[in-house]
Amino acid sequence: MLTSHHQVTVEWGHCDPAGIVYFPNYFTYFDSSTNALFLRALGFNKYAMLRKWDIVGIPLVDVGARFIIPSVFGDVVTIESTVVEIKRSSFRMQHRLLKGETLAVEGHEIRVWVGRDPANPDKLKSKPIPQDVIARLKG
Amino acid sequence: MLTSHHQVTVEWGHCDPAGIVYFPNYFTYFDSSTNALFLRALGFNKYAMLRKWDIVGIPLVDVGARFIIPSVFGDVVTIESTVVEIKRSSFRMQHRLLKGETLAVEGHEIRVWVGRDPANPDKLKSKPIPQDVIARLKG
Amino acid sequence: MLTSHHQVTVEWGHCDPAGIVYFPNYFTYFDSSTNALFLRALGFNKYAMLRKWDIVGIPLVDVGARFIIPSVFGDVVTIESTVVEIKRSSFRMQHRLLKGETLAVEGHEIRVWVGRDPANPDKLKSKPIPQDVIARLKG
Amino acid sequence: MLTSHHQVTVEWGHCDPAGIVYFPNYFTYFDSSTNALFLRALGFNKYAMLRKWDIVGIPLVDVGARFIIPSVFGDVVTIESTVVEIKRSSFRMQHRLLKGETLAVEGHEIRVWVGRDPANPDKLKSKPIPQDVIARLKG
Repeated sequence: MLTSHHQVTVEWGHCDPAGIVYFPNYFTYFDSSTNALFLRALGFNKYAMLRKWDIVGIPLVDVGARFIIPSVFGDVVTIESTVVEIKRSSFRMQHRLLKGETLAVEGHEIRVWVGRDPANPDKLKSKPIPQDVIARLKG
Repeated sequence: MLTSHHQVTVEWGHCDPAGIVYFPNYFTYFDSSTNALFLRALGFNKYAMLRKWDIVGIPLVDVGARFIIPSVFGDVVTIESTVVEIKRSSFRMQHRLLKGETLAVEGHEIRVWVGRDPANPDKLKSKPIPQDVIARLKG
Repeated sequence: MLTSHHQVTVEWGHCDPAGIVYFPNYFTYFDSSTNALFLRALGFNKYAMLRKWDIVGIPLVDVGARFIIPSVFGDVVTIESTVVEIKRSSFRMQHRLLKGETLAVEGHEIRVWVGRDPANPDKLKSKPIPQDVIARLKG
Repeated sequence: MLTSHHQVTVEWGHCDPAGIVYFPNYFTYFDSSTNALFLRALGFNKYAMLRKWDIVGIPLVDVGARFIIPSVFGDVVTIESTVVEIKRSSFRMQHRLLKGETLAVEGHEIRVWVGRDPANPDKLKSKPIPQDVIARLKG
């Protein structure tokens, strides 16, 4: 399965009054890393992806994270992201945020391939992940 | 012209390692206050507004703020927002963020009524603000 | 155990290009709800709490969420938060985000009572949760 | 005066339901660019800077921006930042956000060198900018 590495610099505005990364921002790092992996796998960006396969996005149905070591403003961290499971219309990402060699945060995302519901365009509906997308995610 | 008051509680995640509101968040407060004013003026929310008049949004072309007193987690502040000028396809909002009676932040927004460019749907294009919208903003 | 309800209005800036709440923001809603519960339980805010018990914060070691129904700009949602488990220096919060009667997001947080490490003030170290805090969280 | 260039990739979570960068995020880009300029000018990061000169931060007293061209998810933009004026305890930054050669956003920040008020450590108070900092900002 595909693995990619995404580098993030912890900015002042990502941190809270305790001086450490405000935890929801780790999910923005993970999200950026998943998007970067897709960009690399597919060769074009999310907007192009949404148009090409007529989807609204790849929203999450389940996420989780374990925070091991805090990070602070100025830290340059690496998010190692792997597609660990692909089902009919969903897939699971594993993320490991590393400070140097040390695991600082570990998380996962389960995302669904989602379009507009043909029966009601105001609603979202899962769709099967196209075979060529699966092939590219398998790397 | 219409004036409205919008209350915001300063959350932990709005503050930076100095323990005070991270300044870009004041613009999110102002934006929320403008949206709340529109909701009150028009009687329906932004999504309905976008559909009704076939616009993409009311993006900003110019903003500014003066920060007088910092705010911290737990503060409950009031944003007093006024439509101070309406032109053909743009309008100016004035915002005063108050802690009790004291002016803490003062800012403005110039926003444009924007739709898709008929000549190129990937581009945005300003449109005249509808007369009934102007009438309601004048209060 | 203590349960509290916290109301949040979904703002424009909380939503992503798919028009739905950008998922990390659900964790900011949960965090605000936990802080509101503590404010109600203890009778004073987080800054006062940090000073009174000489702690740096109540950072998270584990979080998770399941996203069932998306929310959009203008939705007014309620977060029902419960302290479901208290250990020596950590506790577990359960959050249920409700749209009317419908469960839209379900999540948890495990937080640790953390001070500066006496041996190295640059590091954080867990401390036992004070008995009077436990008593108040038990409601 | 010192000028620096800071590159930012527009992330999905920076954009709003109109599909463009949510405008307060431009100020986070500017803030990151100012911090990057200081890091380069001083040779050490903001935390070290705060400790070395016993300050709480360099908070803003005045900001503004003009939005000329929107940016979308996936855009890689450059912020060109210049120290344009240095006074006794404040300085002015000018920011130009460029998409390729094209000016997309133009903004400024006036920041103050701020420490704890010796008379009341809960309050902030401006301090003269140290001569060696001024020398380095002059480049």
